[in-house]
Amino acid sequence: MRRAAAKETAISPADIEAAAATLHGSVVVTPCNRSRTLSEICGCNLWLKFENHQFTSSFKERGALNRLSALPAAERARGVIAMSAGNHALGVAYHARRLGIPASIVMPVGTPMVKVENTRRHGAKVIITGQTLEEAGAFAREHARAHGLTLIHPYDDRLIIAGQGTIAFEMLQAAPELQTLVIPIGGGGLISGIAIAARSVKPDIRIIGVQARLYPSMYNAVKGEQLPMRGDTLAEGIAVKAPGQITTGIIRQLVDDIVLVSDDEMERAVSTLINIEKTVAEGAGAAGLAAVMAAPGRFAGTNVGLVLTGGNIDTRLLASVLSRELAREGRLTQLVIDIVDRPGQLALVSNLLGEAGANIIEVSHQRTFSDLPAKAALLQIVIETRDRSHLEDVVARLTAAGFNLRA
Amino acid sequence: MRRAAAKETAISPADIEAAAATLHGSVVVTPCNRSRTLSEICGCNLWLKFENHQFTSSFKERGALNRLSALPAAERARGVIAMSAGNHALGVAYHARRLGIPASIVMPVGTPMVKVENTRRHGAKVIITGQTLEEAGAFAREHARAHGLTLIHPYDDRLIIAGQGTIAFEMLQAAPELQTLVIPIGGGGLISGIAIAARSVKPDIRIIGVQARLYPSMYNAVKGEQLPMRGDTLAEGIAVKAPGQITTGIIRQLVDDIVLVSDDEMERAVSTLINIEKTVAEGAGAAGLAAVMAAPGRFAGTNVGLVLTGGNIDTRLLASVLSRELAREGRLTQLVIDIVDRPGQLALVSNLLGEAGANIIEVSHQRTFSDLPAKAALLQIVIETRDRSHLEDVVARLTAAGFNLRA
Repeated sequence: MRRAAAKETAISPADIEAAAATLHGSVVVTPCNRSRTLSEICGCNLWLKFENHQFTSSFKERGALNRLSALPAAERARGVIAMSAGNHALGVAYHARRLGIPASIVMPVGTPMVKVENTRRHGAKVIITGQTLEEAGAFAREHARAHGLTLIHPYDDRLIIAGQGTIAFEMLQAAPELQTLVIPIGGGGLISGIAIAARSVKPDIRIIGVQARLYPSMYNAVKGEQLPMRGDTLAEGIAVKAPGQITTGIIRQLVDDIVLVSDDEMERAVSTLINIEKTVAEGAGAAGLAAVMAAPGRFAGTNVGLVLTGGNIDTRLLASVLSRELAREGRLTQLVIDIVDRPGQLALVSNLLGEAGANIIEVSHQRTFSDLPAKAALLQIVIETRDRSHLEDVVARLTAAGFNLRA
Repeated sequence: MRRAAAKETAISPADIEAAAATLHGSVVVTPCNRSRTLSEICGCNLWLKFENHQFTSSFKERGALNRLSALPAAERARGVIAMSAGNHALGVAYHARRLGIPASIVMPVGTPMVKVENTRRHGAKVIITGQTLEEAGAFAREHARAHGLTLIHPYDDRLIIAGQGTIAFEMLQAAPELQTLVIPIGGGGLISGIAIAARSVKPDIRIIGVQARLYPSMYNAVKGEQLPMRGDTLAEGIAVKAPGQITTGIIRQLVDDIVLVSDDEMERAVSTLINIEKTVAEGAGAAGLAAVMAAPGRFAGTNVGLVLTGGNIDTRLLASVLSRELAREGRLTQLVIDIVDRPGQLALVSNLLGEAGANIIEVSHQRTFSDLPAKAALLQIVIETRDRSHLEDVVARLTAAGFNLRA
């Protein structure tokens, strides 16, 4: 990618300094700490910027507040509207209420009630309409026109970008030695602001973007690729199909590279942040760490700054990510055992497992949908073991007792 | 309980000031922040002290470092020993290595490998012996005598208590308006130190202890009760059968009351800290919040300080706590349905659930262990719904289609 000085872009470092002044006292100057253990794991010096400590648990407040603060009195009085089922909704709702601006938030049909309730709790009017994000977005634009409301775009807006950029000033103040910033990209607002601000302080700093492999929209736009976009990703916060026009231009100029991370890699990163840092990051919020953990050689020995962009992960998703991580570590395993379909078989297996020190978590029998003859059945048992070698010991004992374990 | 001035106890505020000087630069001065949302939920002004941010994720480092620093050169050279499968092990191991003191940690047989590995990672020699904590403790005392090692007791030690007390100075410096401190009690080292330090700064401050209802050892000792101690608790960090002698004396003098919290209440608190504060607390670490959430009237309108004492919760336990919380909220539910044991029944139920917008998480059939006639079966389905009213809608549709749901 081509490098250029920040001044070629439409947003100047002075705009971001002005945003910092606007935000002062109304958003949290979040901690930016070096993590010793993650640095050891990744083989580089890692700093984490905890934007999940913002009041609504994401950096989106910065852009939202900067944008709202710039509204003239007449627009404030008429109110604002935004389309979002996530962090942008919370950021707009919270700061609009603080400033006394009426806010409507459009969310598509089927949005989990907890997200609707969280947004209402911040005083916004929630309008649930549209089968997809695109339909909800179209409604928001139409509703804005019809009712004279100002639409607050989540990323393709100079004031939003300037607001997000304030993060880089705080990071470089806390850790002037940073050499590389690894930043998630959805629509591109965050990395655009950060690139402009960081380059103005430290022209040689390296800026690496991260996208979910399932949604490589900016990657495609900037690299001229046509990778497909599909499916559900853990990182719904950066699952954006249409990158912004302003942001695409800034990223072409100022971002050194964009890397893709898989959902597996983000799951590991979420889990690692829970286990090591005792902090909750959503999938998109852990994307930067996922990129560093996936390619440690690339960052070896350098000073790397990551932004934990948000902490709003669904509770069930988090529980499931943690359980899957245990499965990867060999601590939680599903055994599938052929048994004869008669009383006492479960007791036999349970006794063996108990003696081997394995903890039974779930048990089920499978007959109707199995490929076994009518007199046989499949016993599915989920067990917890101390680690992989303990698991191997348990499996050996069952096999020695004559049970046939399926792979 | 009787109140007395701190000077009547054997440990003086000056001892704790000396500990603070010893700890300076080697343990983290953790954040102590007011939580707006938790304050709203609990109806009082809540401050959280994030001791889960210590390097080994618990406050135990403070006492351990203060104790280790006081060792004469000869004892340092011979080395130290401690019995712990938890946070005390990590605190002693980490700071012993920093100070160049050989450390042995005794853990009972069956301690999860992850705890053994974590302690080894900090450079300690781990000795796995004894079927119970008591047996492991006896071995540690014997081994210390035989090899001239200094035993580092987890709580019944003046230097340990003084180290833990430094937390109170930091809290009252960050939030001088605090009126009540709600502090977990295991052996009593933490609350003893905190009570002495806090009373020296603010003589009228209220100190409330919290114990797990399953392990009310200090509660019994101080209140002359005989409540039973039994079972597994989420709060293994404060599941201590034998309260300390020094600590019992201090608590009698300086602690205003001790309250008990159930495992359910601690689960809710762990879950709330994840969801609201985006921070990971272990069961014992969330006991203070559990006490406030369980009896909000008691703290209404006052300024309350809590210590999140540690964040070392087992990953599977955390996943399970989060899942159980979803069940309580009506978002995750196990339906048990009587079906005729013939092909196509699951498809029928699945279709109904799909149309109702419920997400199927797990399916199992139950025959061998059910009380049904041979031609019938039980279908157990775990479903995810948006909230309780959505769940009620799903149940109504199944019932309307003729399925018999068990309670």
